[in-house]
Amino acid sequence: MDRDNILLTPGPLTTTLRTKLAMLKDWGSWDADFNALTADLRRRLLDVIHAADSHVVVPLQGSGTFSVEAAVATVVPRDAHLLVLDNGAYCQRMGKLATLMGRRTTVHSRAEDQPISPAELEGLLRADPSISHVGLIHCETGTGVVNPLAEIAEVCERLGRGLIVDAMSSFGALPIDARTIRFDALVAASGKCLEGVPGMGFVFIRRDLVDACAGNSHSLAMDLQDQHAYMQRTGQWRFTPPTHVVAALAEAMRQFAEEGGQPARLARYQDNCRTLVDGLGALGLRTFLAPELVSPIIVTFHAPADARYDFRAFYAAVKAQGYLLYPGKLTQVETFRVGCIGAIGRLEMQQAVDAVGRTLAAMGLPAGRA
Amino acid sequence: MDRDNILLTPGPLTTTLRTKLAMLKDWGSWDADFNALTADLRRRLLDVIHAADSHVVVPLQGSGTFSVEAAVATVVPRDAHLLVLDNGAYCQRMGKLATLMGRRTTVHSRAEDQPISPAELEGLLRADPSISHVGLIHCETGTGVVNPLAEIAEVCERLGRGLIVDAMSSFGALPIDARTIRFDALVAASGKCLEGVPGMGFVFIRRDLVDACAGNSHSLAMDLQDQHAYMQRTGQWRFTPPTHVVAALAEAMRQFAEEGGQPARLARYQDNCRTLVDGLGALGLRTFLAPELVSPIIVTFHAPADARYDFRAFYAAVKAQGYLLYPGKLTQVETFRVGCIGAIGRLEMQQAVDAVGRTLAAMGLPAGRA
Repeated sequence: MDRDNILLTPGPLTTTLRTKLAMLKDWGSWDADFNALTADLRRRLLDVIHAADSHVVVPLQGSGTFSVEAAVATVVPRDAHLLVLDNGAYCQRMGKLATLMGRRTTVHSRAEDQPISPAELEGLLRADPSISHVGLIHCETGTGVVNPLAEIAEVCERLGRGLIVDAMSSFGALPIDARTIRFDALVAASGKCLEGVPGMGFVFIRRDLVDACAGNSHSLAMDLQDQHAYMQRTGQWRFTPPTHVVAALAEAMRQFAEEGGQPARLARYQDNCRTLVDGLGALGLRTFLAPELVSPIIVTFHAPADARYDFRAFYAAVKAQGYLLYPGKLTQVETFRVGCIGAIGRLEMQQAVDAVGRTLAAMGLPAGRA
Repeated sequence: MDRDNILLTPGPLTTTLRTKLAMLKDWGSWDADFNALTADLRRRLLDVIHAADSHVVVPLQGSGTFSVEAAVATVVPRDAHLLVLDNGAYCQRMGKLATLMGRRTTVHSRAEDQPISPAELEGLLRADPSISHVGLIHCETGTGVVNPLAEIAEVCERLGRGLIVDAMSSFGALPIDARTIRFDALVAASGKCLEGVPGMGFVFIRRDLVDACAGNSHSLAMDLQDQHAYMQRTGQWRFTPPTHVVAALAEAMRQFAEEGGQPARLARYQDNCRTLVDGLGALGLRTFLAPELVSPIIVTFHAPADARYDFRAFYAAVKAQGYLLYPGKLTQVETFRVGCIGAIGRLEMQQAVDAVGRTLAAMGLPAGRA
């Protein structure tokens, strides 16, 4: 039967039909109706993390990585020094894009199965006063490990260093409160826990900082200060916005509010995660992270330690039952990943577990032997 | 009545319902089905300008300007020298983004109501051998003037200079043949004459050039060589693609082929343009460009020379009748613009003319006195 697959991926993910239906309209990007849509969206985004008093939010065309690059390009001055404590693929990506754009960048690689240590960060910052900014991935999607945002922010604030947070896969699900957590910039995107479709990101920038960012960016397209100034003046995006993606995100955010906002979304994802981990655990599949470190965003599982296991065959067989898994992103250990996010609930997770179980059995990897 | 407005704008524009319906599906960005969609789209894009033998095409997230910036960043080496002969707002934008990224850039401003002169370009190139690349806007959307691509390309080829073409608003409508016109890079986007929705661009890069572009870009997100190499290796986009926008463009390109490709699309837009220019001409509204220079993409009209005219009131009144016009982009002359592109035909253009006529009459600016 030709039925849409359920995406168990960390974005793009399964969205509601209501969100997708919001794309059945063409908007004039110069028109007042679309400007009002953008303004309403920006207000709602600020409310998610209680940032209306402290930050502005600047939407940007492109994928989430475009917004991470734009945040670094805009907020980190050209003569600054960025430190990234690296515990996964997205940390490495932030280090790479900062280096490429010519910012002095230091990347310290750490274990992928452990959160970043605030105490270690403090030691590094005290040892090198030239480090002006810290880059942090909130939930490192490479493994699913959550880094201690509040504690890292406290260290940065106390030592007077700037903080750039990639909250791509946590925003809207994990609690973030800009009234108590100090950051210069925080980045997320449309197609993650807000359950919109992919195609735009957004960056929160401290109100008292944004004007001073003029001239930092080497890139016209990625200059968030310029984007912000233009939007304040005209209500419009500088360059053609992805109008249908914007409309879908606005509709997704109405459903986010109706569901009960971040606490309700987190509760649903936690329930998804428990259903998944318990279910696959009963099939003999172990999480890569220690149980207390598993996050309700995406879970990395060890692949079955059996010569008969092959990810592509495993993926194809689960897909044939309607569920799309995600490959691992670790180089040293054979893993696969399963997203807990998107417009799905316990029923879909249980059915996905069933599909994995049937697949393992068909591959000759029965429960308990995986 | 709550009926969708018709967009008489140069993109985003009115798309077919069939194109929008293609967005009612969530795709896994890692999945083979989506990779096949991307591969098919790239083949179709190459076919539009007969470039399969000579060029690769690299899609990129973001608006068309992101792709122009990426083309310059990728194809123009860091020690090169770019010349832009400027006859409008998008020429100036190309000059600005090239300057910002640190490329040596020379912008020569010329009259906005005339095409760029190939003879003048030849003189400038002969006078300054340090100019390694020329940047050209094919159809300058600021006024609608079409620059002589074939003649400019011939000069660049003969004098051994690279050519970067922004064909944003012409691609798919005006004829471009990569077998006879030599260019290093040519840029367009989803939401223009292909009649997709906005959210991605694409850049054609000469096959024999693309590998040598490694390391040119200061930007990770905008590095088209890296995007291309990754896509060749994996079939995937490097970073999350705007899956729904990609699916809509693929569907729009099937309709493009069914309609008869570029010649049929041009014929429809020419008919739209004639209906518009004749109709508004009968109301006393004159085009900014000389009649022989008016292009079937977007037409700039002089605003009525009457103190009672106000663009915002004029726009609002025409919008109330279901048609969205576009503001002028000239600083010296009061104008407005009307797009001829999108999923519209003679009927919509005639009704738009009627709406403008009623509006002028209501403003006390009757036909012939505008």
